[in-house]
Amino acid sequence: MTASALSPIANDIASATLTRAALLVAPALDEAVKRLSPSLQVPVQHHLAGGGKRVRAALSLVSAAAAGSTEEIGVPGAVAIELVHNFSLIHDDIIDGDTERRHRSTVWAEFGVGSAIIVGDALATLALQVVLDEPTSERVRAACCLVEATQLMIAGQADDMAFESRASVTVEECLAMESGKTSALLSCAVSLGAILAGAPDATVAALSEFGSHLGTAFQAVDDLLGVWGEPARTGKPVGSDLSQHKKTLPVSLALARTDERTTELRRLLENDLSPADVERARVLLEECGAKKETVALADAHLTMALAALDRVPLVPGPKSELVAIAKFVTERDN
Amino acid sequence: MTASALSPIANDIASATLTRAALLVAPALDEAVKRLSPSLQVPVQHHLAGGGKRVRAALSLVSAAAAGSTEEIGVPGAVAIELVHNFSLIHDDIIDGDTERRHRSTVWAEFGVGSAIIVGDALATLALQVVLDEPTSERVRAACCLVEATQLMIAGQADDMAFESRASVTVEECLAMESGKTSALLSCAVSLGAILAGAPDATVAALSEFGSHLGTAFQAVDDLLGVWGEPARTGKPVGSDLSQHKKTLPVSLALARTDERTTELRRLLENDLSPADVERARVLLEECGAKKETVALADAHLTMALAALDRVPLVPGPKSELVAIAKFVTERDN
Repeated sequence: MTASALSPIANDIASATLTRAALLVAPALDEAVKRLSPSLQVPVQHHLAGGGKRVRAALSLVSAAAAGSTEEIGVPGAVAIELVHNFSLIHDDIIDGDTERRHRSTVWAEFGVGSAIIVGDALATLALQVVLDEPTSERVRAACCLVEATQLMIAGQADDMAFESRASVTVEECLAMESGKTSALLSCAVSLGAILAGAPDATVAALSEFGSHLGTAFQAVDDLLGVWGEPARTGKPVGSDLSQHKKTLPVSLALARTDERTTELRRLLENDLSPADVERARVLLEECGAKKETVALADAHLTMALAALDRVPLVPGPKSELVAIAKFVTERDN
Repeated sequence: MTASALSPIANDIASATLTRAALLVAPALDEAVKRLSPSLQVPVQHHLAGGGKRVRAALSLVSAAAAGSTEEIGVPGAVAIELVHNFSLIHDDIIDGDTERRHRSTVWAEFGVGSAIIVGDALATLALQVVLDEPTSERVRAACCLVEATQLMIAGQADDMAFESRASVTVEECLAMESGKTSALLSCAVSLGAILAGAPDATVAALSEFGSHLGTAFQAVDDLLGVWGEPARTGKPVGSDLSQHKKTLPVSLALARTDERTTELRRLLENDLSPADVERARVLLEECGAKKETVALADAHLTMALAALDRVPLVPGPKSELVAIAKFVTERDN
């Protein structure tokens, strides 16, 4: 979806890394879920069986290795970050009224809103339990990182909701909201590995910055897919972000301009959108240059993410895996 | 509501202690809320303005003093426990569909389900941020205590929901559910003060046991009020727990018996209850002895709670305040 094409080799490296990470984290994740009350395990397993790429877990594991330790040392961080991510998905699905995720019914659609609220709460709490199981200084630092990132993520989600009822938001507001919603947790994922590996502050900071820029690029790609993605690939209706009045990057970039096209777009977005309106809005967003600008912004943040990795000494193999994952998740079409 | 009458002096001590604690914790609680994203502060302030007795905060502060330190040292624990308690109230109100609490509209009724979910998530996370602000060994131990108690509370809430659709539950199942739902957080509240005061393990354990028994007594009184409380005092409809098919202590104690009255009660509880059915169920629960047994159980646990305080040396003044609070919250009629 970004301008530069992903090389087949980087793609292979990313796939192999994600698969290895998913296999390494799966038993620890299962073990953690077994600590929950039995009545909560069924809905959690229903949700987790939907899979997901476990990108955040992989970032925690590989960053531990990149910082000079083993991937195993990053496992509690990887489990915790996946638990927080999945707690947010389960609550977001209630908020957005989404009945399907990864081609399965969402937790609230299957077990009711009450269960889905409780299940999300349980996963968020479990994440901290996993990290604080052995309260070493590294684990405590990881716990602090996790709660700060979780709070930023929640603030981003709150802003995202609040923006739906506003006519427009500035590009800065949109970027700040997306930074909370997406970058905070990705940045935390990468930091956790380095923190648990006992890496120096400079290494943690560089990896954190890598994750933060990667989050912005990742969310920009997500926003592009929300408008122009193939429904068969994304699993969402055509232009669903537009009909939901989401203030995504392409929309906020377009609304920052004033010309005939954006005036028409502004008028379209003020009301409920028919399928024809959605199609027209897609055309206007493309013609006014907002699509191209979003792609450029994703590319720029990917470049800054990769540059952050060059600021500190990292183990070359895992470092190239971080690069491959970054390229992979900003090239995805679903 | 329990058998022994509360002396006017104990009542005065409890009221004075709760008022002092509420005043001590209020600025720190306000300060914590200001750390949230601005869009979340409005619904949080709406909820907190409803007041509440801040019993849990008082228990944290007074237990710090009882363990030989100052009440001030318990403030982060008091703030955190109130945040967790209020997070659970906000989510419970969505789950139970309650539109009013403390004579004000609930968060979901005022701001929507989505906002109420997010607001609860933010408070739960904020609690950990407050405790981990300065990660000393006492604070870290407090954080561990808090996440364990939160998970037990969530499990109790999950069981409470699951029991609504079951025909009956055993007394043991009911007590285990209520232990999670109520005792876990009260026990944690008392422990937190002692932990932050750096008290010896035996002191923390005795105070934790005090809180745990107090929680059982407190919940038994709550269950009595849910069936026989005056609507004008409790703010809930007559016998609301019965019409909601809640498996409370009086109900589980009654269903453990087999005689003509409990057979009739079992039949009544199988279906939706008319106001006449609720009234008949109240009579049957009283005549079969389940009300008296619940009162006796509350008394027994209050006695065990107070006995736990005698197991370790505690500072006499704060200790008598803990006793007064315990008697006060098990004597309440709302």
